[in-house]
Amino acid sequence: MYFSFNDKQIYYETHGKGKPIILLNGIMMSTASWKAFIPSLSEQNMLVLVDFLDQGKSADMTENYDQALQVELVAKLMDELKLKSASVMGISYGGEVALKLAVKYPSRVDRLLLFNTTAKTCDRLRDVGRGWNRIGESGDGAAYYDATIPVIYSAKFYSERLEWMRAREKKLAPLFGDRGFQARMKRLVISSDYHDCSADIKKITCPTLVVACEDDVLLPRPEQDFIASQIKGAQYVVLPDCGHASMYEKPLLFASLILGFVNVKDTEYVI
Amino acid sequence: MYFSFNDKQIYYETHGKGKPIILLNGIMMSTASWKAFIPSLSEQNMLVLVDFLDQGKSADMTENYDQALQVELVAKLMDELKLKSASVMGISYGGEVALKLAVKYPSRVDRLLLFNTTAKTCDRLRDVGRGWNRIGESGDGAAYYDATIPVIYSAKFYSERLEWMRAREKKLAPLFGDRGFQARMKRLVISSDYHDCSADIKKITCPTLVVACEDDVLLPRPEQDFIASQIKGAQYVVLPDCGHASMYEKPLLFASLILGFVNVKDTEYVI
Amino acid sequence: MYFSFNDKQIYYETHGKGKPIILLNGIMMSTASWKAFIPSLSEQNMLVLVDFLDQGKSADMTENYDQALQVELVAKLMDELKLKSASVMGISYGGEVALKLAVKYPSRVDRLLLFNTTAKTCDRLRDVGRGWNRIGESGDGAAYYDATIPVIYSAKFYSERLEWMRAREKKLAPLFGDRGFQARMKRLVISSDYHDCSADIKKITCPTLVVACEDDVLLPRPEQDFIASQIKGAQYVVLPDCGHASMYEKPLLFASLILGFVNVKDTEYVI
Amino acid sequence: MYFSFNDKQIYYETHGKGKPIILLNGIMMSTASWKAFIPSLSEQNMLVLVDFLDQGKSADMTENYDQALQVELVAKLMDELKLKSASVMGISYGGEVALKLAVKYPSRVDRLLLFNTTAKTCDRLRDVGRGWNRIGESGDGAAYYDATIPVIYSAKFYSERLEWMRAREKKLAPLFGDRGFQARMKRLVISSDYHDCSADIKKITCPTLVVACEDDVLLPRPEQDFIASQIKGAQYVVLPDCGHASMYEKPLLFASLILGFVNVKDTEYVI
Repeated sequence: MYFSFNDKQIYYETHGKGKPIILLNGIMMSTASWKAFIPSLSEQNMLVLVDFLDQGKSADMTENYDQALQVELVAKLMDELKLKSASVMGISYGGEVALKLAVKYPSRVDRLLLFNTTAKTCDRLRDVGRGWNRIGESGDGAAYYDATIPVIYSAKFYSERLEWMRAREKKLAPLFGDRGFQARMKRLVISSDYHDCSADIKKITCPTLVVACEDDVLLPRPEQDFIASQIKGAQYVVLPDCGHASMYEKPLLFASLILGFVNVKDTEYVI
Repeated sequence: MYFSFNDKQIYYETHGKGKPIILLNGIMMSTASWKAFIPSLSEQNMLVLVDFLDQGKSADMTENYDQALQVELVAKLMDELKLKSASVMGISYGGEVALKLAVKYPSRVDRLLLFNTTAKTCDRLRDVGRGWNRIGESGDGAAYYDATIPVIYSAKFYSERLEWMRAREKKLAPLFGDRGFQARMKRLVISSDYHDCSADIKKITCPTLVVACEDDVLLPRPEQDFIASQIKGAQYVVLPDCGHASMYEKPLLFASLILGFVNVKDTEYVI
Repeated sequence: MYFSFNDKQIYYETHGKGKPIILLNGIMMSTASWKAFIPSLSEQNMLVLVDFLDQGKSADMTENYDQALQVELVAKLMDELKLKSASVMGISYGGEVALKLAVKYPSRVDRLLLFNTTAKTCDRLRDVGRGWNRIGESGDGAAYYDATIPVIYSAKFYSERLEWMRAREKKLAPLFGDRGFQARMKRLVISSDYHDCSADIKKITCPTLVVACEDDVLLPRPEQDFIASQIKGAQYVVLPDCGHASMYEKPLLFASLILGFVNVKDTEYVI
Repeated sequence: MYFSFNDKQIYYETHGKGKPIILLNGIMMSTASWKAFIPSLSEQNMLVLVDFLDQGKSADMTENYDQALQVELVAKLMDELKLKSASVMGISYGGEVALKLAVKYPSRVDRLLLFNTTAKTCDRLRDVGRGWNRIGESGDGAAYYDATIPVIYSAKFYSERLEWMRAREKKLAPLFGDRGFQARMKRLVISSDYHDCSADIKKITCPTLVVACEDDVLLPRPEQDFIASQIKGAQYVVLPDCGHASMYEKPLLFASLILGFVNVKDTEYVI
């Protein structure tokens, strides 16, 4: 399904009925990445998937923009779906959008779930992204794959699932050599270069789940320690043996963390 | 409700309907400890609570016994409830029973959830328990409280919830000075002194969630690292800023971890 | 050797010549505890050992006092030895004294080495100490041993060195039943009940080494994270598989950390 | 100074006299990288620095070779210096060489010090290295810099020392675009592609110090956990807030760890 946002066509899907959950993608993901999660998350919930601008089946941008625009896109999608509020889960890039949505539109976020997220793009990460873009410009998809993918997985997963990694390489390397893909990725990277809501997140009051992964080299644990320390009452979980792409490395756990946190009742714990 | 096990009356409760979940208590807990969890865990599930021998409203023993007896108690309870199988969650002492149940009766455990659990009582822990029993014998409930309770909470929780801790002290210290309570506790401690299923847990094949807490001084993370390493496909989660009594320190998170892991579908993650 | 401090006889030893190092004991330790460290730490350095008030061969107090008094004792010892300044290492109770010495007399501390130390006695630790004192009053040395010793060792060390632990138990339990020992311990515990230099330690400017131990249940890592975050340029090290009594569990590493940090040159690292 | 190894000229330096220490470089390092460490490590010790084949001032190779060759180079250097044995410190690539030296020539390694080392090059790391080589071939030094350097520093250091990082970028990017440099780097990377002494390191009996860094994304802590678990009596230290280039991020601590561990006496700790 599509809706129009600033005259751009934005692709989204809804599955099931019930308490709504919106999943916000990481930078290289799309609605298609969540296929395996649909049965669990749509059984008792209304599951909403969406492609950001420059992602999946949503429209391309032509110039650089700020990630704040994606925040408005999500708010608009909620209007479209007539959702006054929802549980919002974001991973990485999607987590940054979710954080800013909860800061700017607190009444629209019932529960906030953040996987592999940062409150601020640090200098090191910005330079890592700069490198991705420079290598992407070369048009060498295999080089881009090697520069972006192996390091973000845990060594354990990489060895145990080597065939899966090799299949992924075969599929992604050609895509990564595509000029159109690279132009989109480059704009997405740049849109979060100066992401910073570190001073504002202490205003967030909705129940929040923060998930860090011990082998996440892009957004390591201190980033999530900070978020968990700033949001009053934040629930904090760390996943051992897991890298940045936690939804690929630990799908069952990832799905169960969402399912549980969205549906648990939070009123009765006066122990 | 009661059922009879080896001519002893065993207290249990059931709440709600659906996929069954059995919660197995820690050593100082009882069915009453789970009151706050009932709404969340009985909404779409059949929640089963039970007091072990020498616990809560269940019968006293008169002589020492082995923890294996409690395993049979749980199997008998499942017969009583005509549950061929169930998700079984155990914390600490209850986790040890859950582990042994899954080893001995694999067909009866659909999913296994282990909080603050060890596969084997180590020398250090056995001597800590020996101390508890010795201090308990003195009849000084306040001394027993100080020896057993403060250290098992995280420093953060202890300071942030000091009033709650003080209320707990007021309630528990007199109970801890009670001869009957001490006799039960002593038998419970001794029943797990030689708990050891470390060689057998690799046989467990059901989906398993292992939860460690960073400030658990009785069963610190290496204990759970071991369990997670032995059970193929185990899902592993670590909770920062949480001590041994995780269900008191992090009730919302504790409930959501159970709710999610019991109800998530595990068939589709062929990603 | 003895010197007089407030009309009390204080025992100390010096070994070797060179850049001076003062070792400040943990609460249950004494100068005798460092015997194994003397050869390494006195070869190129002047090693100074000292028993605090109510410790080892130093005089007893008769009433309660504040730990700040021990700080003055160390300053007086330095006067006695005509040491304008020295490297000061403290573990646990001794680390607290070292921290306050560095805050109050910055010119006298060349380098500061802190093992298993806190900037502030938290509520939980204060209540743990309250329990120690209560159990100590019972005169049951074995109960006191069980309440204080097993939990402070790592499970790994406890099992691997079980014979050593058993020998220690045999030696310490009778001592722990001694009324005189208990009176001293009680005063020492109370003297640090309201230790708090958390607001002042950011003033410390000398090169500082902070050592945390992953299995330290009394002063776990967050205590040392805080110290390391407050002292500008602090060097921070974490020891896996080690409990609170790090000098017993990891003597070779303990000695080498001191030896290296005291003698390394710190002027040239303009890299 | 130079010596001849397989008809290749190998550059080395010695500084000071005393118990010898040999420092083995990481892959992008050279003897020049240790300049700041010379005063501390040569005051009471004979400090030996050496450039591996394809490194610094040592000769180039022309074809691919196995890292085992560098092990022989170090043994030959010891012959040249008439050192029957020495303390051997290696970081990363140098640590791998040090491990294999200690396995093959146990009598020549008195003490072994391993920083940021692995016992085996895992699939993930091999593919990361493959990416480095592919990007290196493009001749784009800035892309190579971005792909190799930012991610290996901790985010904290990167931001706090941003000027230093920028200066480093200015110096390294042109070098990284040099064909000769790339040819050397490529051979060095390939020489360790199938490094694996994981089955042999349990034979090592000399006192060993293992140092892991919490933000090391290339060789994260599990790699060092493994080494520490295999070498009996290994001393193990973890550095918070430090990435893979620990000698740049924590020079004072790095130097003090070497100084202390090499010179501490290890005979007396029968406590």
